[in-house]
Amino acid sequence: MLTELQDAYGRMMWDHLHGKPSAEIVERDDGYLGISAGSSLYFAELRSRHQRAVMRFVRGRVLDVGCGAGRCCLYLQKHGHQVVGIDVSPLAIKTCRRRGVKDARVLPFTQVSRALGQFDTILMMGNNFGLFGSRRRAQWLLRRLHALTSPDARIVAETNDVYQTKDPDHLRYHHLNRRRGRMSGQIRLRVRYKRYCTPWFDYLMVSPKEMKVILAGTGWRVRRFLKSASSVYVAVIEKLPRNVKVVSRA
Amino acid sequence: MLTELQDAYGRMMWDHLHGKPSAEIVERDDGYLGISAGSSLYFAELRSRHQRAVMRFVRGRVLDVGCGAGRCCLYLQKHGHQVVGIDVSPLAIKTCRRRGVKDARVLPFTQVSRALGQFDTILMMGNNFGLFGSRRRAQWLLRRLHALTSPDARIVAETNDVYQTKDPDHLRYHHLNRRRGRMSGQIRLRVRYKRYCTPWFDYLMVSPKEMKVILAGTGWRVRRFLKSASSVYVAVIEKLPRNVKVVSRA
Repeated sequence: MLTELQDAYGRMMWDHLHGKPSAEIVERDDGYLGISAGSSLYFAELRSRHQRAVMRFVRGRVLDVGCGAGRCCLYLQKHGHQVVGIDVSPLAIKTCRRRGVKDARVLPFTQVSRALGQFDTILMMGNNFGLFGSRRRAQWLLRRLHALTSPDARIVAETNDVYQTKDPDHLRYHHLNRRRGRMSGQIRLRVRYKRYCTPWFDYLMVSPKEMKVILAGTGWRVRRFLKSASSVYVAVIEKLPRNVKVVSRA
Repeated sequence: MLTELQDAYGRMMWDHLHGKPSAEIVERDDGYLGISAGSSLYFAELRSRHQRAVMRFVRGRVLDVGCGAGRCCLYLQKHGHQVVGIDVSPLAIKTCRRRGVKDARVLPFTQVSRALGQFDTILMMGNNFGLFGSRRRAQWLLRRLHALTSPDARIVAETNDVYQTKDPDHLRYHHLNRRRGRMSGQIRLRVRYKRYCTPWFDYLMVSPKEMKVILAGTGWRVRRFLKSASSVYVAVIEKLPRNVKVVSRA
C-alpha cells in the first residue's frame, strides 16, 4: 500500500477526477523519462473493437488486478459480473468508489488470498501482466492464483511485446537488462506526478514466447492470444486439465 | 555548453522538428515534476496581441538570449532587425539554423562579450529573465550588458510573478527557498527528456517589485511593465540617464 507521497498515479487520477490537468511521468531506472497516456486512458470507457473482444473472454466472478480508476470494473459491473477491484493506490481505490465501483479494495497483488472468495477470471488489463514483476514472482503468483480460482478459471492479461521496437533507447535498455540477468522487458520504474513518487518497482513485459515459458509448470497455459494493432496483446490463459501434474517448485 | 546527454531541451526540439512527439519535463530540486508547454510553444509563431505589443519595444540590433528554436529571431529577422541568437544548447542552435535563423550561436549568457558587437536590444522572452539565475548574478550580468549595449539600449525581458499562485506545492517551495536564503522564485531545476538531462541550474522568477530591487545600482531601470492575461509579464528596461552614477560593487 502506497503512502500519501508515494501515491503518484492515484493522485493523478484524483486530480483528473476533479477536473485538474494531470499527466503521468514514468521514470525508468536508466534515467529515461516518458509520459504515459495517463489519466485520459485510465478513465476512458472500453469502446474499441479489440477491448470488447477481450471482454467477451471474461466470465463469472472477476478479480481486476491493478484496477486503477475502475474502467474495467465499471464495464463488467454493467454487464452483470461480480467484480472485486484491487490496487495498491489508496487514491485509485477512492476514485473507483467515487465512480461507482461496488467492491474496490486497497490490496497488493501479492496479498490476494482466499479471504476474497473464489474467482472465475483474473483480469489484468492496461499492460497489467506487468504486475507479475519478474519471471520468478510470476510463477509464484500463478501458483497462488491456481489455488484461488475455480477449476475452469481464466487469466485475461494484457502485455506489450517489447521486442517490437526500433527505438535505440529501448533496445539499449533491453540489453542492459539482459546483461544484469533480467528479462529484456523487466522494466524497473517509478511513477512520478508533481512531488509524488512511487517506490521503484519491476513491471514485466514479455513476448508471446516468453509468456509460454513463464507459464510452464504453473498449472496454466495460453489458450489464445488476442492481438491489437500495436505491440500490445492480450493472452487468455486457462488451467491445464486436471490430469496434468502441476510441478511444485516451492 | 551542454554535452549530448545534457542537451535535453535541444533534443526535444530536434525531435519535434523531425515530426516526433516530444514533451519537456521540468524537475525542481524539491522533487516536483512538471510538464512544460514544450515543443509546440518553442515553435509557435508570435501571434498573440501581447506578444506583438512586446515586439514593438524591440529596436535596432538584437541579442536574443536563450533563443531556443528561434521563434523570436525569425519574427524579428522578418521585420528587418539584425538578430544574434544565443543558447547553451547545440541542438537548439542547430534547430534555429535549420529553420532559417541567420546568426545563431552556441554560447552561455555569461560568455557574452564585445566580440559579438554592440546591441540595441537584449531580448529575453519565454520567461528568460530567469537566465539571470540569482539576484547576485543578475546584477553582475546587468553591469556587463550595460557595457555591451548602445547608450539608449533596452532589455525586453519576460518573467513570471511567482507570488500569483495558490498552489500549495509552489507556495511550499517558495518558503523552502526563503528559508535557505534564496529568493522565493529562484527555482533550481533541470530539464529532462527521455534519457537526456541538463545539469541543475537556477532560473529566477520575480515580482515587479523584486525586479526593481535587482536593477537598482546596475545602471538600468524599468521603463514599463507589459502585463499579460496570466502571471507572466514583460519588463521593458532602459538605461539610466548618463548623469546618474552607476554604483560599482565589483
